[in-house]
Amino acid sequence: MLSRTLLGENIVMFRGKEGAPQAILDRCPHRFAPLSAGRLNDGVVTCGYHGLSFDGEGRCVGNPHGKPGAIRTRSFPIVARNMILWVWMGDPDQADAARIPDCSFIDETPEAARITGTLPTGAHYQLIVDNIMDLSHADYLHPTTLGGMFTGAKTHVSGGNDRLLIEYNAVDCNPAPAFHSIVPPPQKADVRVEVQWFAAGVMILAAGAQPTGTTRDPGRDSFTLHSITPETDGSAHYFYCSTRPFLTDNVEVSASIKAALEKAFVEEDKPMLELQQRQIGDADFWSLNPLLLPIDSAAVQVRRALDKLIDAEARDER
Amino acid sequence: MLSRTLLGENIVMFRGKEGAPQAILDRCPHRFAPLSAGRLNDGVVTCGYHGLSFDGEGRCVGNPHGKPGAIRTRSFPIVARNMILWVWMGDPDQADAARIPDCSFIDETPEAARITGTLPTGAHYQLIVDNIMDLSHADYLHPTTLGGMFTGAKTHVSGGNDRLLIEYNAVDCNPAPAFHSIVPPPQKADVRVEVQWFAAGVMILAAGAQPTGTTRDPGRDSFTLHSITPETDGSAHYFYCSTRPFLTDNVEVSASIKAALEKAFVEEDKPMLELQQRQIGDADFWSLNPLLLPIDSAAVQVRRALDKLIDAEARDER
Amino acid sequence: MLSRTLLGENIVMFRGKEGAPQAILDRCPHRFAPLSAGRLNDGVVTCGYHGLSFDGEGRCVGNPHGKPGAIRTRSFPIVARNMILWVWMGDPDQADAARIPDCSFIDETPEAARITGTLPTGAHYQLIVDNIMDLSHADYLHPTTLGGMFTGAKTHVSGGNDRLLIEYNAVDCNPAPAFHSIVPPPQKADVRVEVQWFAAGVMILAAGAQPTGTTRDPGRDSFTLHSITPETDGSAHYFYCSTRPFLTDNVEVSASIKAALEKAFVEEDKPMLELQQRQIGDADFWSLNPLLLPIDSAAVQVRRALDKLIDAEARDER
Repeated sequence: MLSRTLLGENIVMFRGKEGAPQAILDRCPHRFAPLSAGRLNDGVVTCGYHGLSFDGEGRCVGNPHGKPGAIRTRSFPIVARNMILWVWMGDPDQADAARIPDCSFIDETPEAARITGTLPTGAHYQLIVDNIMDLSHADYLHPTTLGGMFTGAKTHVSGGNDRLLIEYNAVDCNPAPAFHSIVPPPQKADVRVEVQWFAAGVMILAAGAQPTGTTRDPGRDSFTLHSITPETDGSAHYFYCSTRPFLTDNVEVSASIKAALEKAFVEEDKPMLELQQRQIGDADFWSLNPLLLPIDSAAVQVRRALDKLIDAEARDER
Repeated sequence: MLSRTLLGENIVMFRGKEGAPQAILDRCPHRFAPLSAGRLNDGVVTCGYHGLSFDGEGRCVGNPHGKPGAIRTRSFPIVARNMILWVWMGDPDQADAARIPDCSFIDETPEAARITGTLPTGAHYQLIVDNIMDLSHADYLHPTTLGGMFTGAKTHVSGGNDRLLIEYNAVDCNPAPAFHSIVPPPQKADVRVEVQWFAAGVMILAAGAQPTGTTRDPGRDSFTLHSITPETDGSAHYFYCSTRPFLTDNVEVSASIKAALEKAFVEEDKPMLELQQRQIGDADFWSLNPLLLPIDSAAVQVRRALDKLIDAEARDER
Repeated sequence: MLSRTLLGENIVMFRGKEGAPQAILDRCPHRFAPLSAGRLNDGVVTCGYHGLSFDGEGRCVGNPHGKPGAIRTRSFPIVARNMILWVWMGDPDQADAARIPDCSFIDETPEAARITGTLPTGAHYQLIVDNIMDLSHADYLHPTTLGGMFTGAKTHVSGGNDRLLIEYNAVDCNPAPAFHSIVPPPQKADVRVEVQWFAAGVMILAAGAQPTGTTRDPGRDSFTLHSITPETDGSAHYFYCSTRPFLTDNVEVSASIKAALEKAFVEEDKPMLELQQRQIGDADFWSLNPLLLPIDSAAVQVRRALDKLIDAEARDER
């Protein structure tokens, strides 16, 4: 059983009888004990306080004190795809697995070339989305690993509604240290990075570099998933998975990328995001009148798209 | 001096000149320093900040800066009885020592056969009362010590107002491991357990077991006091004292009962109660629509009785 | 860079190009990152998140993503005087360095005879001001160091508005242990202590003692600054600096005074102030109806003066 707080709700996830993932409210409807403090047996969770049992649909399938009858706890649509558990926290009737972003690049990458991490971050999920939707920050926060060529790059933003694309093209630049294995200094490079955002907090980053003026091979792009799941109003689960299509069995390259990502994400992004959150506190982000810069274009469009989606959902619920 | 927060008030308890227990507000009326941070001398507490002195009635009996005059701090009726300090936190005129539940079984038990404990618990006191007023939980939470025969037992609830009795009769059952010294397995037993509740949080549990079909001797019942004093809205002092009328000088039996109670109360009840509290947070218990089961009968009657008593007291104060 | 929370605002202090102290809001106007998490270079602070740079006036002097234009962060008037940084948190137009209390006794004292300390204290700054404006507490809280003769001393309070003086004259008294190097027991002494308060939280204490009946030499008075800067509503920065005009190169005397002050301030005052704060919590001080004693005269006058000044400032802002 895996107990996690998602969007302020306590959820317990486990495998059903047939092995499929299940997600139900981690709270017995009787006396509110967390079901995750009980026992899992053959796809059924039994509350450790008074023995009520629930299946993955949230149905009571065992009541030692009477009939299970109509006893239920809430269940949540959940799908395992591309090595990720996708839980739908909204109206179950609106759950649509077809809208899950395609992360098949994860499965298609040999394990040795996949670098994954989970980063509990004490910051509102939108601050983390801002972070990825404005990669110029890498030039200042990650100068020794991922940054260097974003501020001078040409950018283009497209899309809208629930997805958005930002492209960075840096021509004849000094590439970030992370690209030095592909374009060693003092060689200059042409670098292209794309970030595709999917509402609410899923971003897929594609990045490629080659020596200046040589032909780009999109088949050599690296992909990194940044998936941000809100935990509470001031914290989020930050999942990432970085893959590459080259040197896929070279564990030394993997170790070096892993070290760079952990330096950037754990030692630099996470503290900065948490400091931001502490400064903002409970205030509404816009109420603080943030200065808008050209680099914020994609992040601001994402925030406005989210505001619209959140408003629309609130209207539907009324 | 013993400083404790009771019902949200900071209280300091100490012995007066003649040795009688005293309880006054642990807050100097001058600058609100806790008196317990001062000195106790001959039944008088002197504030460590500016030297005002108070006796157990809360009267100022020493003021180095003027006359004691009418300076007072609040005092609370307090009685030591049956090795327990009973403090009355309400209107002092309503204090009535005759209403203190009789716990003389404690004094009457030789020290070697008394097992006592204090358990600071991060849960609303009514959650702890619920716990004791529904012993079916022992079958699921304490299967290796106290539980096993409650779910199948016949129960009977009687009383009302400020006291309530629930009786459990389990006939020809597999007794809880705690009874194995009396009825060793695989023998079956007839077990009888009674819990008498006294408002607000005092419960006395009487328990006896004998081999199936043999005659019950009420004189061999064990008694356990469960006394729950609210500390704050989300925490309570849980005091317990378990006694037995047999093998009273057998320290090994005492050690084994003590181990069983600590496993049940400290390792199982306390974490579960604190998890419940975290799930409930500041919400009103009933607002969460708890599922009602037959096992909840006594606990729900106690909650309703408490609601009435609390309402009546609030009306009196208006 | 020195980052401190003053009056609930996060401030970063640093030296400008010419070496003068600077104080600006420790929050980038772009995404609210604390500037103190960035880099200081030649009097300019560069944000570690997206590279905006600010000088000590709060002007943006570097924007890698466009023109600095009118980008600003708040700056605060700051003056270094008498080894103290004085920051003005109010309306910058009202800042008036001429109103800074004269603490030249600090500079005029050789370093070996200056004893300084910073005490983060979890108490509202007015509780700490109360503490110093009523030295009678020393007789009860600091009997082994600073107290003994205040309760019996004659006091006189004068002044008003934004400054106030309380004088203590103890004639033919047993002086506090801290005076034993000047008047060794069992000799009696005449002791004079003055505390001058300057709004909001600056107090200068002058103290002198001589054998009973001998002539007082004001030139031998010791001076101690007690400067209390609010951090949040429930905490303050407590700075102190004690000087003496005699035995100024005697490091043993300095060590002994330092030990006495630390015992009194760190081990006795700070815990008592923090206990007071916990008892008071969020409540308004006066709403708790504190008992008023003659010893409170100066402290109460200071509180009333502060209330007036705070009201007047609030009126000005409207």
